[in-house]
Amino acid sequence: MSGEFNLIDKYFAHRQANRQDVDLALGDDCALVSPPEGYQLAISTDTVVLGTHFLANADPSAVAYKALMSNISDLAAMGATPAWFSMAISLPEIDEAWLAPFCDSMFTLADAHHLQLIGGDTTKGPLSISFTIQGLVPKGKALTRSGAQVGDWIFVSGNLGDSQAGLSVILNPEDANKPHAKELVSRHFYAQSRIKLAERLRDHATSCIDISDGVMSDLKHVLKRSNVSAQVEITQLPISDLATDFFGDTQQAQLAALQSGEEYELCFTISKQDKPLLDEIAQQVGCLLTCIGQVTENQRDAEHTIQLLRNGLPIQEDDLARQVHGFDHFN
Amino acid sequence: MSGEFNLIDKYFAHRQANRQDVDLALGDDCALVSPPEGYQLAISTDTVVLGTHFLANADPSAVAYKALMSNISDLAAMGATPAWFSMAISLPEIDEAWLAPFCDSMFTLADAHHLQLIGGDTTKGPLSISFTIQGLVPKGKALTRSGAQVGDWIFVSGNLGDSQAGLSVILNPEDANKPHAKELVSRHFYAQSRIKLAERLRDHATSCIDISDGVMSDLKHVLKRSNVSAQVEITQLPISDLATDFFGDTQQAQLAALQSGEEYELCFTISKQDKPLLDEIAQQVGCLLTCIGQVTENQRDAEHTIQLLRNGLPIQEDDLARQVHGFDHFN
Repeated sequence: MSGEFNLIDKYFAHRQANRQDVDLALGDDCALVSPPEGYQLAISTDTVVLGTHFLANADPSAVAYKALMSNISDLAAMGATPAWFSMAISLPEIDEAWLAPFCDSMFTLADAHHLQLIGGDTTKGPLSISFTIQGLVPKGKALTRSGAQVGDWIFVSGNLGDSQAGLSVILNPEDANKPHAKELVSRHFYAQSRIKLAERLRDHATSCIDISDGVMSDLKHVLKRSNVSAQVEITQLPISDLATDFFGDTQQAQLAALQSGEEYELCFTISKQDKPLLDEIAQQVGCLLTCIGQVTENQRDAEHTIQLLRNGLPIQEDDLARQVHGFDHFN
Repeated sequence: MSGEFNLIDKYFAHRQANRQDVDLALGDDCALVSPPEGYQLAISTDTVVLGTHFLANADPSAVAYKALMSNISDLAAMGATPAWFSMAISLPEIDEAWLAPFCDSMFTLADAHHLQLIGGDTTKGPLSISFTIQGLVPKGKALTRSGAQVGDWIFVSGNLGDSQAGLSVILNPEDANKPHAKELVSRHFYAQSRIKLAERLRDHATSCIDISDGVMSDLKHVLKRSNVSAQVEITQLPISDLATDFFGDTQQAQLAALQSGEEYELCFTISKQDKPLLDEIAQQVGCLLTCIGQVTENQRDAEHTIQLLRNGLPIQEDDLARQVHGFDHFN
């Protein structure tokens, strides 16, 4: 785009210390990096588009954080340590008031993860940002979706439902008057990083995914890849006091927790033997870890299914939804 | 996006043989690859946006080829061998008539380079495609912009000006009646790959760049990074018979050759000692290689400049432009 080189110089170049494994960052035809021996690379790409993923009035700092964190979260889901990222950004015009806070926020989050911007492309077009992130994981230690075994316990990090509540406030102005509305919007945009947790889970978790589409939906990907089923006890879902207040009803908060996307928490499975280790890990990384269910065998007529339980008794997700006032709100 | 998983399954998954260094491609939170020891990774990102880089009536096969080739060309410019790529694609809707030929073309080009799609993201939004490509280069052998030495010869691959002519036909309907219009449009979209050439240049070229903004503009990046200047003899510029016919005038064709972007030819420098090797390399890789000038010392008052010559006599680019009928056409 016109002014591309000035744009790169002004906003993107010389903003970060150079990692030792980065031989050449911005400014040539390609970046050059030297991956360390004995590691695999984990690579993920995510795009956010104005109008699809965020609104025009969204704080650019929050947009940058959320977009990059969704990529960092993909690395966490694989047990990978962040290393390098590239950014493709399309802008209708060079808007300094938008770009400056966007970049500040992006580099602050990147620096906190020792994650270096190595290249990218700036183009004229409708506002969208696409990150490709790369992380390092010791060979053979990556956490995938395919290793869950019958009998493993199912855990989630953090709380579930806050992001859904925050999104609800953004999309429905009348929800701004509900309890903790502002804080929940902030939680929607500013998810915690689970990289430290992921690094500790490398030697223990049997499968892992990050919660981007809702724990029900994401856990199903694990079950399908691992060819197993699961039981989930909805009374065990970790729900913040803020979300409970916001939804005003425990059942509605539980339903939100099941469906809330963009939480960027980890959902992982762990063997019975390794389960006791999680107390120590939770304490070391300062992260709530909650057992929400167990991996079960497929039934002949129902593969890769999640059996929801309430206090040990089966309940259908549809029945739960029907019991909850305001369910359509989220569809 | 709604239907994302079906979309990925239908168009993007199981389309290519698995490279040995790809441990996990599409279908998990990240791709996993194992870079071979002793290599650096070259990484580049390029985006094409509807309305900025191509028109709505452009053939999707041509759009896919050109977008991916511009990335492959960045690898060539570094002397890297293609390995893996990720794609972020935004689509306003799932248009099968557009997606099917787009994907066919993309995978055909990728397969020809043993280049595997390892991941990506599909989102709802204005039509744009962003590729992040990764290639392998033996440690320390990458061709950069910074190694040109005073006295080195400056070469370009292929011909220059065809892409400019083709673009002119696309943007100006009246040019459709000029000679070879259709063939030149095809050359605009379907650049030759210079990967084989680049692999042979690894041990010999002192600097390299691919011509995406025009040889004048791109050579200046090399001069700046290498802290040198250059002389270019415009009568030596390689120009196809088609472009000469199309422009109808040698001087106009020369001006186009200087400024024509998106040629995806290589512009490289080579020492006097290694210059004789290029005849053999040109023959082996089946590619025209033309010496267009020489690297010179910076003058005290004029650093990183290109002195244009016509038959050995200095000429200013502006003067050349003024002599050429129809110059404004290209601005």
